[in-house]
Amino acid sequence: MSAADWIAVDWGTSNLRLWRMAADGTVLDRAESEAGMGRLAPEEFEPTLLELLPDLDAETPVIVCGMAGARQGWAEAPYVKTPCTPPGIAEAIAVPTRDPRLTVRILPGVAQDRPADVMRGEETQVSGFLALNPRFDGVICLPGTHSKWVHVSAGEIVSFRSFMTGEIFELLSQKSVLRHGLGGGWDDASFAEGVDQAMGRPAAFAAELFTLRAEGLLHGLTPEKATARLSGLLIGMELAAAKPYWLGQSVALLGASKLVAHYRSALETLAVPVVIADAERMTLEGLKAARKTEKTE
Amino acid sequence: MSAADWIAVDWGTSNLRLWRMAADGTVLDRAESEAGMGRLAPEEFEPTLLELLPDLDAETPVIVCGMAGARQGWAEAPYVKTPCTPPGIAEAIAVPTRDPRLTVRILPGVAQDRPADVMRGEETQVSGFLALNPRFDGVICLPGTHSKWVHVSAGEIVSFRSFMTGEIFELLSQKSVLRHGLGGGWDDASFAEGVDQAMGRPAAFAAELFTLRAEGLLHGLTPEKATARLSGLLIGMELAAAKPYWLGQSVALLGASKLVAHYRSALETLAVPVVIADAERMTLEGLKAARKTEKTE
Repeated sequence: MSAADWIAVDWGTSNLRLWRMAADGTVLDRAESEAGMGRLAPEEFEPTLLELLPDLDAETPVIVCGMAGARQGWAEAPYVKTPCTPPGIAEAIAVPTRDPRLTVRILPGVAQDRPADVMRGEETQVSGFLALNPRFDGVICLPGTHSKWVHVSAGEIVSFRSFMTGEIFELLSQKSVLRHGLGGGWDDASFAEGVDQAMGRPAAFAAELFTLRAEGLLHGLTPEKATARLSGLLIGMELAAAKPYWLGQSVALLGASKLVAHYRSALETLAVPVVIADAERMTLEGLKAARKTEKTE
Repeated sequence: MSAADWIAVDWGTSNLRLWRMAADGTVLDRAESEAGMGRLAPEEFEPTLLELLPDLDAETPVIVCGMAGARQGWAEAPYVKTPCTPPGIAEAIAVPTRDPRLTVRILPGVAQDRPADVMRGEETQVSGFLALNPRFDGVICLPGTHSKWVHVSAGEIVSFRSFMTGEIFELLSQKSVLRHGLGGGWDDASFAEGVDQAMGRPAAFAAELFTLRAEGLLHGLTPEKATARLSGLLIGMELAAAKPYWLGQSVALLGASKLVAHYRSALETLAVPVVIADAERMTLEGLKAARKTEKTE
């Protein structure tokens, strides 16, 4: 196994991804673990990292982004406030380690005062996207558990807004009375119908949810259609509120393939031009951008 | 223990309430159990009922309302369709029992074709309210896990709409990321602020939720304020969608005291006149109304 020049880590709430990097920016190998920040006490981060690096060489820099920098994480990396460039190594905090082979820095998240909002991890994806698209001016949408809409201009994060869309979908489909009528599969027309309904009458959300249940009982609504319409209702409500972000803008969608495809289909119905980028790749590009500034400091 | 003339039962999803009734309509005694329909297989209903009636006399009529009549309950009591008077004993189904001392009937729920909607139990509360207020013409709101708005005219249920407001509140406050920032206590001003926000911009719901989390992290939003604002956001969104029901109407609120007080405070801000009735009492009055029609048949 060849020695890593440095280590890139995306340490989220529920899992962590790690890349051993060569000096020229290529990936030597990649590891993944479910030892997310949510499961670890502060003193458990260092041993968790070392387990994933059995052949660690002397004094290897480690650059971390994500929830490991939260107050309840490994060590708090205080937020940088908007408007700001995506934080780089200059804003990172150094984390003391017991093992002298590790030199760990954690990149901070970004906070916004009003409306109050926070991100940890997405700022590194934005940074990676901007590294690959330095002239991009517009809106980056990061669908997920807590979807983010980020207005980027002249290389800065100008403002952003988070939506609990993904988490509400998970709760409703797994823990609510609706779970009895939902299932695998998908139906494009039902998704589009849900988007339309929610954009037209967002206030009726809690009623439209119960209608899904009642249509299942009375009219035999299928689980695929119910699931797609639920997703449409939630994404439609988000798009209605995010209109100041996407109206007249080009939107870059960063995320995992299936979810991004749903957002793209809804945005294209609204005649919003969309480009798509893979979220994991953008994270790695963002960590690489931070590493570059470290080397030139 | 004096012999009961008949037994009134409100058999819901998560619990059941039972009253042993005298011939003159007074309550001899009341029992409660957590053996709700959600925990019972069809064959377990009869033994559960018998356990609560240790001194049962010969051939006692039992009148049941609620989820015991659902497809997954004791025996299905098919819905009556709107517009309709609240179903009485003529629409009830007879349930065969092994014990010859029991004569069980289950009152059906009410269904609406478009928008698809269903109720089981609330129709009996409406019936009870109408028994006490026979000339009532207007809207009955039953806040709860699945809040109902019921338009009543000339003794009939004309139309209704259900909202998953209460269930969403429970899920968000107990299972979502928001649980870290919520707590006991209450703040009237924060509740009113949430109602205002949601009525003004209902689509922003999923964003306002995340703002609760971010204000906790950045600006020290207290758990009481966050809880009250969350409740206000949900009730405000419901009120925005239910406007065709309450606008220019008098509204009767049927429910448990704390929740009803929140709905009343929000409705009074909108200059909607409100009368309040206790939900459990209305259920019993509805079962008594059904018993009366049985005796005269």
